[in-house]
Amino acid sequence: MSDVAIGIDVGGTKALAVAVGADGQVLGELRSGTPHDRDADPGSRAAEVIADQVLELSRRQGLDARQVPVGIGLPGMMRRDGRLAFAPNLQSASGSDLGALLRERLDSTSVVVENDANCAALAEHQWGAGLGIDDFVMVTLGTGIGGGVIADGKLVRGRNGFAGEIGHMVVDAHGAPCRCGGHGCWERYASGGGLARLTVEAARAGRLPILVERVGDTERVRGEDVTAAAAEGLDEAVAVVDEMGWWLATGLANLVAILDTGHFVVGGGLSEVADLVLPVARRYLVELVEGYADRAFITVVSSTFGVRSGAMGAALVALGTRS
Amino acid sequence: MSDVAIGIDVGGTKALAVAVGADGQVLGELRSGTPHDRDADPGSRAAEVIADQVLELSRRQGLDARQVPVGIGLPGMMRRDGRLAFAPNLQSASGSDLGALLRERLDSTSVVVENDANCAALAEHQWGAGLGIDDFVMVTLGTGIGGGVIADGKLVRGRNGFAGEIGHMVVDAHGAPCRCGGHGCWERYASGGGLARLTVEAARAGRLPILVERVGDTERVRGEDVTAAAAEGLDEAVAVVDEMGWWLATGLANLVAILDTGHFVVGGGLSEVADLVLPVARRYLVELVEGYADRAFITVVSSTFGVRSGAMGAALVALGTRS
Repeated sequence: MSDVAIGIDVGGTKALAVAVGADGQVLGELRSGTPHDRDADPGSRAAEVIADQVLELSRRQGLDARQVPVGIGLPGMMRRDGRLAFAPNLQSASGSDLGALLRERLDSTSVVVENDANCAALAEHQWGAGLGIDDFVMVTLGTGIGGGVIADGKLVRGRNGFAGEIGHMVVDAHGAPCRCGGHGCWERYASGGGLARLTVEAARAGRLPILVERVGDTERVRGEDVTAAAAEGLDEAVAVVDEMGWWLATGLANLVAILDTGHFVVGGGLSEVADLVLPVARRYLVELVEGYADRAFITVVSSTFGVRSGAMGAALVALGTRS
Repeated sequence: MSDVAIGIDVGGTKALAVAVGADGQVLGELRSGTPHDRDADPGSRAAEVIADQVLELSRRQGLDARQVPVGIGLPGMMRRDGRLAFAPNLQSASGSDLGALLRERLDSTSVVVENDANCAALAEHQWGAGLGIDDFVMVTLGTGIGGGVIADGKLVRGRNGFAGEIGHMVVDAHGAPCRCGGHGCWERYASGGGLARLTVEAARAGRLPILVERVGDTERVRGEDVTAAAAEGLDEAVAVVDEMGWWLATGLANLVAILDTGHFVVGGGLSEVADLVLPVARRYLVELVEGYADRAFITVVSSTFGVRSGAMGAALVALGTRS
């Protein structure tokens, strides 16, 4: 196994690159904006930015960019052949084979691609909050909800490699429309985007009078206003966080029913929100899980690596291909 | 591996026992009523009935009941230690260790227990509609919905051994109450019990005028009336079957999102209903699955062994322990 790999988590707004040792230590880090030029060939601008990150990190770490294993975590459904099939948050790269573009640009043979939440699950399983736990689900809360399912110690990939799209599990079949084309998807309720929606709904329904007065407009209360006020104990804001926590628990309970999951690792960009919401979700799980009392205690914990877990997992996948 | 095993599927109303060869051939079969005496010690009456079945089938097949491997499929959450933890349809045996009771009664060492839908999944994987397919979900439609998840060629058991309780995945969070204590569970919409509920709702809402006139009472239209009339092409009945098919597809689409399932095997006691509903569900899957066009074709097929798959799978589990 190579000693060091570079992992890059390409999100909807930022690309985070890390150099990681085989022991999980982060040796260097770099952030860039994610390009969204839709005029260029699919993926070509993204490949350019990522290649620059690899070259710069390699230079800093004294690595040969043509030799270092590179892993890329992407926000969308990755085919087993490496193509990005469905990526609402990275449409400029949809349909492209970023791995091939990178291999060409870097003159490298060791570039692998993987779904970002799968990467996060693998990193937490190898080094973090899922260490030694053979059955758990990684839940990444951001604008939407991503996921990675570890069963019997292995990542579940499914037929096409698309497993773990847990944010598009329908929990309210006649509910809010989702950007995927469906209705009532879990991420419309229990993600950052979901909190924003619940907030606007509550404001319109007159359930956030103090916050509406503070910002001066029913339509302008944001999820961040709610979490800040809830952290200070404002009842009307706590009620909205409670609602989000109930929805989060509803989806987790579904995963428990299907997979008998005993452990959840919650990561993604919303760590302040998670601090408020996870205790609520744990409380509701007790009533929402079928046969809760007959099961071993279900743990719901924050990820060890937070926003870095995707990039670290991408590096881990790259390290693995060299083992 | 032993040549023959006896498998028994203990349902809410009937216990079906089969003698099965290692090649999957059913050599003999026997049905008894399931006892529900709640006065007796938990499981003791069920153990008596099952033991009688084993003795009678053994006698007919010329087997030694103390030697033949016996597998029991039970309708509830089976702990990994063999105890039946949560069984709404077999409450008289809840909390009991039927395997131990049977071993004692038969003076046998080879009695194993397993969840009934997991048994069905294993039988279809070994000999039937899931043969050679490493990632599929078994869906058993009866009064409720049971399930067995095969990932990467193996049954997913989860933390406590309770995986596959797919009927209690919530698809309508503020929906109909379920006997599990929850609301909006999938089986309240897409099972035999779900069809009965959708039928009464439709009758009350005036959407089944012809059927209501036939049976003479809004409250007395049954699911069977709807399926019989739908099979004859009566529009108002076809509409209710369509609704059930949409709900079935909604749950299947959730499993696709989470597991990237490419194949579903539908079994259980409702084969006439399944014949009508599966084509509808297949049609709705196309619009309900995220990124449908980017996936390999998703197949939804009827089980090969129908009501026998649970008992056959229980026999298979018993055969496996002797391998």
